[in-house]
This record gives sequence, structure tokens and C-alpha cells, in this order.
Amino acid sequence: MNQRRDFLKKSATATLAAVAGGSSLLAGCAKKESTSDAPSVHSGKKYEWKMVTTWPPTMPIMQDGAKLLAQWVEEMSAGRMNIQVYGGGELVPSLEAFDAVSQGVAEMGHGSAYYWSGKSQAAQFFAAVPFGMNAQQMNAWIYSGGGQALWDEVYAPFNLLSMPAGNTGFQMGGWFNKEIHSIKDFQGLKMRIPGLGGKVLAKAGGAAVLSAGGEIYTNLERGVIDATEWIAPYHDYKMGFYKVAKYYYYPGWHEPGTVLELFINKSAFENLPKDLQVIIRTAAYRVNLWMLSELESKNDEYLEKLVNEHQVKLRQFPEEVLQTLKKYSEEVIAEIVNADPQSKKVYDSFSQFKKSISGWAAISEKLYYTSIL
Amino acid sequence: MNQRRDFLKKSATATLAAVAGGSSLLAGCAKKESTSDAPSVHSGKKYEWKMVTTWPPTMPIMQDGAKLLAQWVEEMSAGRMNIQVYGGGELVPSLEAFDAVSQGVAEMGHGSAYYWSGKSQAAQFFAAVPFGMNAQQMNAWIYSGGGQALWDEVYAPFNLLSMPAGNTGFQMGGWFNKEIHSIKDFQGLKMRIPGLGGKVLAKAGGAAVLSAGGEIYTNLERGVIDATEWIAPYHDYKMGFYKVAKYYYYPGWHEPGTVLELFINKSAFENLPKDLQVIIRTAAYRVNLWMLSELESKNDEYLEKLVNEHQVKLRQFPEEVLQTLKKYSEEVIAEIVNADPQSKKVYDSFSQFKKSISGWAAISEKLYYTSIL
Repeated sequence: MNQRRDFLKKSATATLAAVAGGSSLLAGCAKKESTSDAPSVHSGKKYEWKMVTTWPPTMPIMQDGAKLLAQWVEEMSAGRMNIQVYGGGELVPSLEAFDAVSQGVAEMGHGSAYYWSGKSQAAQFFAAVPFGMNAQQMNAWIYSGGGQALWDEVYAPFNLLSMPAGNTGFQMGGWFNKEIHSIKDFQGLKMRIPGLGGKVLAKAGGAAVLSAGGEIYTNLERGVIDATEWIAPYHDYKMGFYKVAKYYYYPGWHEPGTVLELFINKSAFENLPKDLQVIIRTAAYRVNLWMLSELESKNDEYLEKLVNEHQVKLRQFPEEVLQTLKKYSEEVIAEIVNADPQSKKVYDSFSQFKKSISGWAAISEKLYYTSIL
Repeated sequence: MNQRRDFLKKSATATLAAVAGGSSLLAGCAKKESTSDAPSVHSGKKYEWKMVTTWPPTMPIMQDGAKLLAQWVEEMSAGRMNIQVYGGGELVPSLEAFDAVSQGVAEMGHGSAYYWSGKSQAAQFFAAVPFGMNAQQMNAWIYSGGGQALWDEVYAPFNLLSMPAGNTGFQMGGWFNKEIHSIKDFQGLKMRIPGLGGKVLAKAGGAAVLSAGGEIYTNLERGVIDATEWIAPYHDYKMGFYKVAKYYYYPGWHEPGTVLELFINKSAFENLPKDLQVIIRTAAYRVNLWMLSELESKNDEYLEKLVNEHQVKLRQFPEEVLQTLKKYSEEVIAEIVNADPQSKKVYDSFSQFKKSISGWAAISEKLYYTSIL
């Protein structure tokens, strides 16, 4: 007991010396007996983590959301966990975030799983699939329909785990410098459209051009590309595309509800105490819902600005165009799943869930948009 | 300094005595210097709270979600906050939860704001409005469209604050013992349908009958009522209505996306340390998304069971019926907002948001359900 007291005295004195105005930490240690309502002070180990994102450092909503997630974790942990958030290029280039977190250069990343199709073809099914599912159904699949377990399986070889941490909602089809009357209008069309959407465009005879975010506007202005997709009215407005392309097409067939993700170095996560693990997982749900709500609300506001203040010509892809793009999408996906058993396993779950939820959606949400709204 | 050391010694010794195997708490106090990854031990004040819900104690998803929320708060706070969850009738009757939390009998409640229209007519606009908004749009309005600030205003006089903590998603129109061919079929119809939906039914010449959850089945079986609404396929299946009513109607015009709420005694909440406040708010987002995902996923599964295993006859309300119910809904709402300035203020915000988001929805989510899915 004497020995214990000595240790106690020493460690507590050391703690006292370690913090400014030491008595506050002391008060924390004595809280069990206290009836004070002052914020409790935690004396647990402090975690200093880094988060690298795939977003430009000033990108609204996406980068804001990553920072909010860090803020909530810090607040919930009463300062025991501090996450420094780096935008794309600030610590590592955007598209190296996956490797950086896998290797522990940073403990966390925020992005979207289709950026990692070069690492794992199966990853992209946890982000966006052309003619796939919308935000509500992606959440239902991942949280309640078996999607998360498959995602864990896909990321495990990289010493990563991942979870939904945002959703763009339904996107727009993109900006075009000419009208699209039939699928033939895609022939020779140079369009900035990444991922599976780009492969579908190629099947329609177009050329998918890669452009970093900062170059798209100039490429469109100079005719290097004829068209580009980006996100939806709010972000597209900020990019100024309405100044250099006349026609704004819907629907965003290639990204009906893109899941954004929080990916975490698995060893680092497993070494966290349970409370911080649950804090991180819970913050990810919050930012998922926060981002979608912000986007829904702002897209509406900026759609009005585009149409009323900037005379953007809104156009719907003809039904024949959509049906043909859908057929090509199925071909693109079939090629991937036939070549990669893990992609097949994930896509089987995805498409089975989509097929079965469509029965319920047809008598619920569909009616909302066609009869109630 | 000596005095401080004395205090330190005493309080730490007392703490040591207060916990079994005292050294673990001590380790917590010394953690700043430690490099151990063992779970940190918090020494803050312990909070023992009660949550009363409006749900039957065995109600799946709703009561499960309330319990999960309590579990996540306990985990995130590393045991500093324990919330004992009571179903309806276990501590106070379901519909007394509002008063119980307002008066501090319990610190928290889980339910839906339309149960409190007797306290405040404006409350119900934060739950469900006939021909109102679906889950995604209700979230966008409350989280990002100004809804939360109004909700705070409405609940403040009751020393309460509230926030979304679940959503049923789109509901079904209900179970009927006869087919509905025109609005005239509602004349004399005795239907269990609470809230604004019941007032709309009355305008159509029907009689809204109140039945507690446990009595609905028997009332329907014995012909005390001709029809009942409940929730959607999963919960309706569990209630066994398919055994006593043939026709299952959609859409659930009266509840297109009912928000469930976590309401909290304001003084109790304000006396919590900041970390626990953020923990509770974040857990509420999580359970919001969790419930909707569970319901979407299970409704689909049970819809199939109802149709394929129990030969339930699915029917859509004729368009004329929906249009007439919509007109009556507008009348019912007009009567409420004309009589109550606070309801007017809330409904103005609600309907303005709905009107404006419908422009964006018409070229995004609507297309998802009509062209993509």
C-alpha cells in the first residue's frame, strides 16, 4: 500500500506539473466524489491523428464535413483525440490517400471508394455504380443489407477499414456544349467523366478525358473537352461551368447516390480504446447524414440560381439515350465481375439488394415523387 | 504547493478506495505520460439517466433504436453516462413521456412529435404532415433548412429540446376490409388513424377511431373498425393484420416520412459537460440513419412475405382519392395554422422548403425512381 501511495503521489504530481493550471486535471481525477457539473476532464492517453482527404482543401461540404468529423471526435473525446485534417496535396496528393492510410503515414482518410479501383476493382461498388442505387438505398444496403461486411473484406488486405461518411445524393448528368438528341451524339464526344461512367461513355463511342478538378473549366472553355460531369447544382455553380457550357443535363445516371467514405488504418483503429472507436463510428454516421442534408438543401437553392440568374438550359437525356447507357453499363459491370471473383461477390450482393428493394420502393418512395410531392 | 499536494493525496487515495482494483483508475490519471494502448479510464462524474419511450417495450426497431442510442452513449462516454431505457408503461404511460421529461421525472424521451399536438399544435410538423415531406427531405429541412431552430423554439416553453432520432420512411396507406374505388368509400368508414390523418378522414366522412396498439387487431377482427393504418410491411406483418383484412393500400399519404425524436430535459442537458452533449447529439444522428436503413431493408423483405406467403392484395389508392385527400389535408392544415401563430410560422418554413426542394427533386430523386431503378 505504501508503495502504491508513493506511485500515486509521484504520478499525480507529474501530471500536475504537466498541465497548465494543474488543478483542473486533478479535479478530473477526483470527479467520482464530486457533484460539480463542470466539464469533466479525461486523463486518458492523448491521440494525435492525421486525416488525408481526396478533396481540394477549400472544397465546400466534402472538406467541411471531414473537418466537422474531426471536430466532433475531438469534442466527444473531450480533447483526447485530435485529428489534423489535410486536403488533397497538403500532405500527400489526393489519389495517394489510400496508400498513405494503408501504410500509416496518416491514420485516416476521407474520399470515395471508386478512386481505388486500381487497387481493388471491388472497391468502386461501395461508391457509385451507373444505374445503381441512390443514397437511401446505398445506406440501407451497407448498414442493414450486408454491404459493410463485404466492404470490410475488400479493404482488409490493405490493413484498412472503411465506412460511409457522406453521400452526394443524386448527381447531375453534366454540362454539354451541344444538345444530346440520341446516343449517336456521344460519338467522338470528349467528356471529363471518371470511373465506370467513363467506360460506359467509351462504349457509346465517346472519349473519357481525365482532368483534375482545377483544369476542367479551362479545358471546357478551350474546347479540349466538349462536356464534363461534376456533382450537382451547388458544386457545379461554384465551378462556374455555366459560363462555358450551355446545356445542363439530368439525370446523373452514372452516380445516383455516391457514398463518401472514412477509411482508417486498421491497426491504428484496433489499438484505440473502445470508447474512441465508437466515437469515430458514430461521427461517421453523423457526417453521412449531415452532408446529404446540406447537399439536398443547397442543390435546390443553386439550381434556381443557375436557371433564373444564369439562363442555364436544363435538359433531360432522352429515354432512348438512358436505356442505351444502361445497357452499356451492364456490359461494363459484367466485364469487371467476370474477371474478378471479389467484384462478383460484392456486385451480387449489391444487385440482389437493389432488385429486391425496388419492389418496396415502387409502392413507397416512387409514389412520393410521382403522387405526393 | 503543500496544500495542493495534500489535496491531491487525499482525493487520489479516496478514488483509489472507491474502485475495485484501484490501480486502473490511477493508471487513467497517469495516462498523459503513459504510452499504453489499454482502454483509457475516465474519472469524470457519472450520470445515471432515464429514457422513457412511447413504444411498446418489445417494439422492434423503434425500441431497439432507443436502446442502441443508450448503448452508444454509454460506450462513447466509457461508462460515464448510463441511460436506463423504459418502454411505454414501464415507468410512465406512453403518452405521458413528454410531461415526464419536461418535469424531469426522466431526463430523456423517445417518440414522435405528433403525439404532443395537445401540448403544442406546432409540434406535429416535426413528425409527419399528410402530403408532406419524405425522410430525406425532412432531414434536409431540419438539419440544413432552418427546421431545428424552430423546433427548439416550440419545445423551449416546456423546458425541452428535441432532435431527429429515427425515421419510419414512407409508410403504407393501411389495411382495409373492402376495396376503395372512390372517395365515397370513406363515408362511414371506421378507421384507426391518429393525428392529422384522422382529421382528413373525418372531412371525407369517415370516423377516426383511437385504438392503442394492442387493441387494433381485435378491433379489426371483430368489425369495431373497418380499417387501420400502422407503419409499413415489417411492423404490419408482426401485428398480423393480414389475417383479418384483405386489402393493403399504398401510398401512405398521411405519413410520407415520419420523424422520430429524442427529446431531452433542457436543464439536465445544459448541465452536462460539453463532451456528453456532443455524444448525445451525434448518437441521435446515428440512430436516425440506423432506423431508416433497417426499415427500408426489412420492409422490402416483409412485403414479399405478405404478398407471396399470405396472398395479401396490394392496392393503390385511385388518383382521384389521393387528390381529394390532398385537398382535405390542405384544409385541415389551414385551420390549424390560422388558429395558431406558432404553427403558422413552422408550417411556413416547412412548406416553403418543400416547395423549393421539389424543383431539385423533380430532376434528381424523382428520375431515380422513374428512370433508373
